[in-house]
Amino acid sequence: MTAQNPRRLLGGIEAGGTKFVCAIASHPDQPIEIERFPTSQPRDTMARVGDFFRRAAREHGTLAALGVGTFGPACVKPGAASYGKILNTPKAGWGNHDLLGALRRLLPADLPIAFETDVIAAAVGEAVHGAAQGTEHVAYVTVGTGIGGGLLISGRPLHGRLHPEIGHMFVGTAPSALRESETSGACPFHDSCLEGLASGPAVEKRWGAAGRDLPAGHPAWILEAEFLAMGLVNLTAAWSPDILVLGGGVIRKDGLLESVRDNFERFAAGYWELPPLDQYIVAPALGQRAGITGALTLASRMTSS
Amino acid sequence: MTAQNPRRLLGGIEAGGTKFVCAIASHPDQPIEIERFPTSQPRDTMARVGDFFRRAAREHGTLAALGVGTFGPACVKPGAASYGKILNTPKAGWGNHDLLGALRRLLPADLPIAFETDVIAAAVGEAVHGAAQGTEHVAYVTVGTGIGGGLLISGRPLHGRLHPEIGHMFVGTAPSALRESETSGACPFHDSCLEGLASGPAVEKRWGAAGRDLPAGHPAWILEAEFLAMGLVNLTAAWSPDILVLGGGVIRKDGLLESVRDNFERFAAGYWELPPLDQYIVAPALGQRAGITGALTLASRMTSS
Repeated sequence: MTAQNPRRLLGGIEAGGTKFVCAIASHPDQPIEIERFPTSQPRDTMARVGDFFRRAAREHGTLAALGVGTFGPACVKPGAASYGKILNTPKAGWGNHDLLGALRRLLPADLPIAFETDVIAAAVGEAVHGAAQGTEHVAYVTVGTGIGGGLLISGRPLHGRLHPEIGHMFVGTAPSALRESETSGACPFHDSCLEGLASGPAVEKRWGAAGRDLPAGHPAWILEAEFLAMGLVNLTAAWSPDILVLGGGVIRKDGLLESVRDNFERFAAGYWELPPLDQYIVAPALGQRAGITGALTLASRMTSS
Repeated sequence: MTAQNPRRLLGGIEAGGTKFVCAIASHPDQPIEIERFPTSQPRDTMARVGDFFRRAAREHGTLAALGVGTFGPACVKPGAASYGKILNTPKAGWGNHDLLGALRRLLPADLPIAFETDVIAAAVGEAVHGAAQGTEHVAYVTVGTGIGGGLLISGRPLHGRLHPEIGHMFVGTAPSALRESETSGACPFHDSCLEGLASGPAVEKRWGAAGRDLPAGHPAWILEAEFLAMGLVNLTAAWSPDILVLGGGVIRKDGLLESVRDNFERFAAGYWELPPLDQYIVAPALGQRAGITGALTLASRMTSS
């Protein structure tokens, strides 16, 4: 911060299981600076977070509020004993890590901080600045290293007891599944949950190659579209959203989103009266920036409230 | 109504697909009179509803408010063009029936009426007067002619675009399923949705006998417990409730609820930190009165607001 430049800044963190994204901005959809780095042990990762915000604030203004969208499971319930903590995760070092507490120690003690799940942050980003503008019930689903999803109900997140973990829903047998490896999954807990069947690691385990190395015509993608379409049918049944925004790395494969829509139409079989499917199942308009834009949006709400 | 007895009455209707329940009460959990009759064509059914409330009001006091919990799909969104209507249903005569409009014509024009789904009414009943007292996120699931479910989030119903229709979620293959008839279902829309696999009619179609005629040791109940447990895993993943109240006729079979809990434990496989399962998956404390008690509770809120 300089006397010449006392700009009030929004800070955002997308705390992902594989990478962290930090950003500062004056307006949520116009970041001034974004930095990405791999998620390593908490101590090193948080040190980089602290360095980024201290330097960014020094150069560009004063940090007025911070929004965090974190990987889970995490306690996002203000007032709960575990509020701000990552809970039981296989990710080395992060189990029971007090992420919010670490941020409070690294940053000014009175900094307002919004603490949410990564998928709710992404849903907020898309609802306010992206593909879900003007819709009331916004579902965001990410398909990558894991599969997660969040629902905004007229702007309020569905948390429940903890928060949804939709990757662990069971789905039916994919019509194109032929071999045992195509009906069982990679989840260490569940035989055939959506994440175990259709996450990036599940694809890699089944076919012996990462999704990015499997060409668009590979049978992997027929199966993937079927699994994801069944997952979206389940979310339609459980959440009744106005729109399903489908993000994450896996879904960017050429033709996959269209194939998910085609299979959704086949599996839903006309039961629901829905918007046209190309308006109901959509890619994030903000692309990979949905989460960080949402985190910055959550920060902006802390400054106005 | 008599001059001697101008008691202010609450009215409740549980509008089910197979039967209607009408009640009047002074307090939601103490009905003065309850009447049940089969759901026939709308004209006849609504005439009986009108007769009940006019006579009951004449004998016992003045109707101050009415709460309705209806079968679906129905529009429960105040202000929407279809508010108060049954939507597209295979039930003869009821498709697009204006249930709320019919009630307004039968009853005093200025009577406050709350219009909700049957499962949200039941969830309200259990949350306020039954097994879910003191819990914040209450899921109610009914297993009968169909399978439906509703979620209360700190007292507010999850509606979304329309309302959840959880019976049409896909679930995985039941471990005990051996024959084709045990993996495919009876839903006219979906091959293997929960309702198609595990509703009363699905059981009857598969085994050639109604559930009430299949003894507790019959293989039907092993399969039924597996299907329902997978459904409850899916709701845990999608809704993250504090409690799952499991109502409806099917679930009252001896030992079935316990078997659902055992299978839930097996399928969830320790992934979630949950309350003890005998407190997480419970029978309705109000039994078959959950819905009508909830409808009366919704009515009572109309008089105090």
